Amino acid sequence: MFSYLKRLLIGRPLKSNELGEQKLNKTKALAILSSDALSSVAYGPEQILIVLVTVGAAAFWYSIPIAAGVLILLTALILSYRQIIFAYPHGGGAYVVSRDNLGVNPGLIAGGSLLVDYILTVAVSVSAGTDAITSAFPALHSYTVPIAIVFVLFLTTLNLRGVTESASILAYPVYLFVAALFILIGVGLYQIYTGHVPADLHTSVGTPVAGISLFLLLKAFASGSSALTGVEAISNAIPNFKDPAPNNASKTLMAMGGLLAILFSGIVYLAYYYGITPSVTETVVSQIADETFGRNFMYYFIQGTTALILILAANTGYSAFPLLAVNLAKDKFIPRMFTIRGDRLGYSNGIITLGVSAIILIILFKGQTEHLIPLYAVGVFIPFTLSQSGMIVKWVREKPKGWVTKLIINATGALISLTVTLMFFLTKFTQVWPVLIFLPIIVIIFHKIKTHYELVGQQLRINPNHMPKKIEGNVIIVPVAGITQVVENSINFATSLTDQVIAVYVSFEREDERVFEEKWKKWQPNVRLVTLHSHYRSIIQPLTKFIDTVQHKAGENNYQVTVLIPQFITKKSWHNILHNQSSLLIRAYLLFKRDVVIATVPYRFKK
Amino acid sequence: MFSYLKRLLIGRPLKSNELGEQKLNKTKALAILSSDALSSVAYGPEQILIVLVTVGAAAFWYSIPIAAGVLILLTALILSYRQIIFAYPHGGGAYVVSRDNLGVNPGLIAGGSLLVDYILTVAVSVSAGTDAITSAFPALHSYTVPIAIVFVLFLTTLNLRGVTESASILAYPVYLFVAALFILIGVGLYQIYTGHVPADLHTSVGTPVAGISLFLLLKAFASGSSALTGVEAISNAIPNFKDPAPNNASKTLMAMGGLLAILFSGIVYLAYYYGITPSVTETVVSQIADETFGRNFMYYFIQGTTALILILAANTGYSAFPLLAVNLAKDKFIPRMFTIRGDRLGYSNGIITLGVSAIILIILFKGQTEHLIPLYAVGVFIPFTLSQSGMIVKWVREKPKGWVTKLIINATGALISLTVTLMFFLTKFTQVWPVLIFLPIIVIIFHKIKTHYELVGQQLRINPNHMPKKIEGNVIIVPVAGITQVVENSINFATSLTDQVIAVYVSFEREDERVFEEKWKKWQPNVRLVTLHSHYRSIIQPLTKFIDTVQHKAGENNYQVTVLIPQFITKKSWHNILHNQSSLLIRAYLLFKRDVVIATVPYRFKK
Repeated sequence: MFSYLKRLLIGRPLKSNELGEQKLNKTKALAILSSDALSSVAYGPEQILIVLVTVGAAAFWYSIPIAAGVLILLTALILSYRQIIFAYPHGGGAYVVSRDNLGVNPGLIAGGSLLVDYILTVAVSVSAGTDAITSAFPALHSYTVPIAIVFVLFLTTLNLRGVTESASILAYPVYLFVAALFILIGVGLYQIYTGHVPADLHTSVGTPVAGISLFLLLKAFASGSSALTGVEAISNAIPNFKDPAPNNASKTLMAMGGLLAILFSGIVYLAYYYGITPSVTETVVSQIADETFGRNFMYYFIQGTTALILILAANTGYSAFPLLAVNLAKDKFIPRMFTIRGDRLGYSNGIITLGVSAIILIILFKGQTEHLIPLYAVGVFIPFTLSQSGMIVKWVREKPKGWVTKLIINATGALISLTVTLMFFLTKFTQVWPVLIFLPIIVIIFHKIKTHYELVGQQLRINPNHMPKKIEGNVIIVPVAGITQVVENSINFATSLTDQVIAVYVSFEREDERVFEEKWKKWQPNVRLVTLHSHYRSIIQPLTKFIDTVQHKAGENNYQVTVLIPQFITKKSWHNILHNQSSLLIRAYLLFKRDVVIATVPYRFKK
Repeated sequence: MFSYLKRLLIGRPLKSNELGEQKLNKTKALAILSSDALSSVAYGPEQILIVLVTVGAAAFWYSIPIAAGVLILLTALILSYRQIIFAYPHGGGAYVVSRDNLGVNPGLIAGGSLLVDYILTVAVSVSAGTDAITSAFPALHSYTVPIAIVFVLFLTTLNLRGVTESASILAYPVYLFVAALFILIGVGLYQIYTGHVPADLHTSVGTPVAGISLFLLLKAFASGSSALTGVEAISNAIPNFKDPAPNNASKTLMAMGGLLAILFSGIVYLAYYYGITPSVTETVVSQIADETFGRNFMYYFIQGTTALILILAANTGYSAFPLLAVNLAKDKFIPRMFTIRGDRLGYSNGIITLGVSAIILIILFKGQTEHLIPLYAVGVFIPFTLSQSGMIVKWVREKPKGWVTKLIINATGALISLTVTLMFFLTKFTQVWPVLIFLPIIVIIFHKIKTHYELVGQQLRINPNHMPKKIEGNVIIVPVAGITQVVENSINFATSLTDQVIAVYVSFEREDERVFEEKWKKWQPNVRLVTLHSHYRSIIQPLTKFIDTVQHKAGENNYQVTVLIPQFITKKSWHNILHNQSSLLIRAYLLFKRDVVIATVPYRFKK
């Protein structure tokens, strides 16, 4: 049943050598890895205006220089990540770059920060997309949480199917969104050029504005730079590209940077020229589209693709999280299971962990995850800063050809990223302080896990100078509950292994004991029977006590003690509730509390 | 941790021979077993008036003859159950009486009906009590469900502690309630006698009323007889009484019947004399108390004890359900685990099942379980009818001294119960139809369970003519994942049992295999190693295939195959998530799918 459903949803298992076929070409990679970055065009410009409007509509012209600042930051980041791609062709996430160049702890801060961030990406993007849908169909409003969960489950299933197949489905909406915005910007600019838009809707650039402050401008810049979250996704995902992976990744990164720059500038400019004021009830993009087209087909097309790409932005998390988890798990900072490829060759455990965590966040915040955005942005800029500082150290240390140019590029990136990070802490401390608590905790957990794995490794290593004690013989204890075929079976098996077999009967009533002992003598005269009386109707307590005694004696002669427990295998699974699962309990208890081998002898009911 | 909490809540475990001390004396038994019946005084009279008010206030005098009818029914039931107590001194619930005299299926209908009914008792009574509390403190209204759940948990814990101890706590509120109602009725009657109550508040008995019909009167009678739910509790619980149990139980039953009759008649009479009209916002008892005392201390005392006894009425379910479950389980109609006494000698599994089921009902119905009352009443009168019909058959069959009187008593009881049952179906079919679906399903499930146990019994029985095949030798398969101390341990143990040991290595990469084989030859030259390649990165599939091959060969020579699986025992329990629990998976899979013995060798980490 379960395995059939699994097949249906995620497809037949793939052989390990089919891995190559699952890799991404550039067109698909652009779609699958840039939806997060591109979708932020839908809210980035708005974030700038929301800060400026606190001074007044006259301040809106500042969005132009601020956007220029964001574009400079974008350029620095893109060039910087392009260098990282070639320097770390096996996937240079912030974790790997920081770890290799700055040390383990900066690496873990970057890695931990991103790990949490990808979960936030999924929760925030899916919630935002769901909001867009429920705004259009208010009747669905009370179902926000279930709808968001369905989307997360859908994305999780797609990703469990494997990267290429999901890319095919996910590519269309991304390109439709890009096309829709290109048309919007093109038509908008054409209307401005042909004079269809009155020029007095906006104040001209450079108009003095009362009340503007550097603090406010920095806050607006920090808000606007939240549009850059997601640009690191490509450099993390190089192993998913077709060969030559670094070249293909680099070209994809440049294409994404170009698209992002055009869309961002276009929207900021149109918003400025139309003099658009941010509103609670209507997004800036919606207002621009309304001004340009009115509420016709194109308007709804733009709104629809925007909603869609917001949901798909979550997919960036699905591409990046499992790969980052593999890197952390290879270094033993998180559980080993994240390195295992599933049936469809994706890192299923990472995908499932991400999906489940995002669903938990959505439920906890009842689908209103918007106020997590600043937290999420600062969680991106910390690893940005660390990975680029790492690159600076790398260039200084290795001094390859043309290292000074490379150094300047990364230094610029590092400086701007650091500035943005600090701005977030300065201007939005009330929203981003949890980072200062979570990051140290995560880093400590990483270290605890690593310490455990290392201790285990030491304990498992064979010591050639220390030979283990030879086992001289075996004692087998068989707890019996009556005179049945199951007991006959177990006793038979035990006597085939050793002649030191002890049957143990736990009685609750004194009279029982004598009757049972007599019956036993007639039935199995060659097997020793020990009866134990239980005052408290517990089987485990007297049994454990008895095992301790036997083990003590056996230990003196280097004998190994084994407890043989029969297990009913019922024909239908509902039959299991009809049998006291005491064998399971006894087995678990003895295994974890005593140093005995537990042998389970199955007894299969035929009816 | 868990066991400490358990001690704290339910107390130290008791020895089996401490059972006698847990038995009930009459005073405590009356409190613990009659709270359900007595509490129904709080709503029974009201149910009658609710039906009569549909015709008009003039019809209220009919409550007097209807109450007389209910009293006759009560007398018949009490006398009838008194006879059952002496005829079935080991606990004559409707199940036992019907089964013994009418046959298995009538017995199962009675038993299944009561089993479900006790769950309803708990859910309905606790919800009603919670309603009384939230009516007094409206601020708590949105917490109805959690409050009700806390009460169920409280009652469950009390009952797990054991009957006597819970009786001590539960006795006070029951006696306080009885005292409160006695004072109310006494003061009320005194005021009427001394002429403080105007005589024109009510129409006199016998006044002709337009629109009254037999159907309506029958409906009012059926509604009023819901006050009799719970009178069977004592006859079910005879084993809980101190010796001589039947005598003590009989006296307790009579006392309960007397109290119930006095309280019921008193409330009906005062309601009639005061001319009280049932209202949605205030209960009839509250109105009477208000008329008699005004809103002084006595009023709140009566309301408080009423709320309390409604919650305690649930406790009747806790006394009766586990005992009925024991009877059904002894006859193998429900899982055997219901016959096991817990640490405190109560039938813990029954108590826990009841508590959990009631909580599920409360959550499903969001604490508004009132419309389950008719369902619950009809579920009581079906077993009433069956058990008394059973007694008729018994008297006819056995013809003991004075059997004609006994026959008449039970026949009257059976006839009235049957009439009430039919009235419920006639007048409230839309609310009671689910009984007609659930009862057949429950009876079928009972039979399925019994069939399973009988088949298992047959299969377990030793057949003296058929000796099992002798096991000629043992093959032990040890799956190995590397060259570690754990593997060394397992191989050591395996070779101490047999010389037919096969180590199996599952590789995901072809190159791995050769390297591993060479290392193995140097390390364990005497143990045969088989390497298997897994295309799909699954360990279970190739391993299972290999085991099948070995088992086929071994079977030909009567060899038994054992698979040895090492199990890490980590030092701290959180460490477990850091290890792939593949050993658990493999063990479960092989045990249920293949006929091999699974031996688990613990390997304990010291750090």
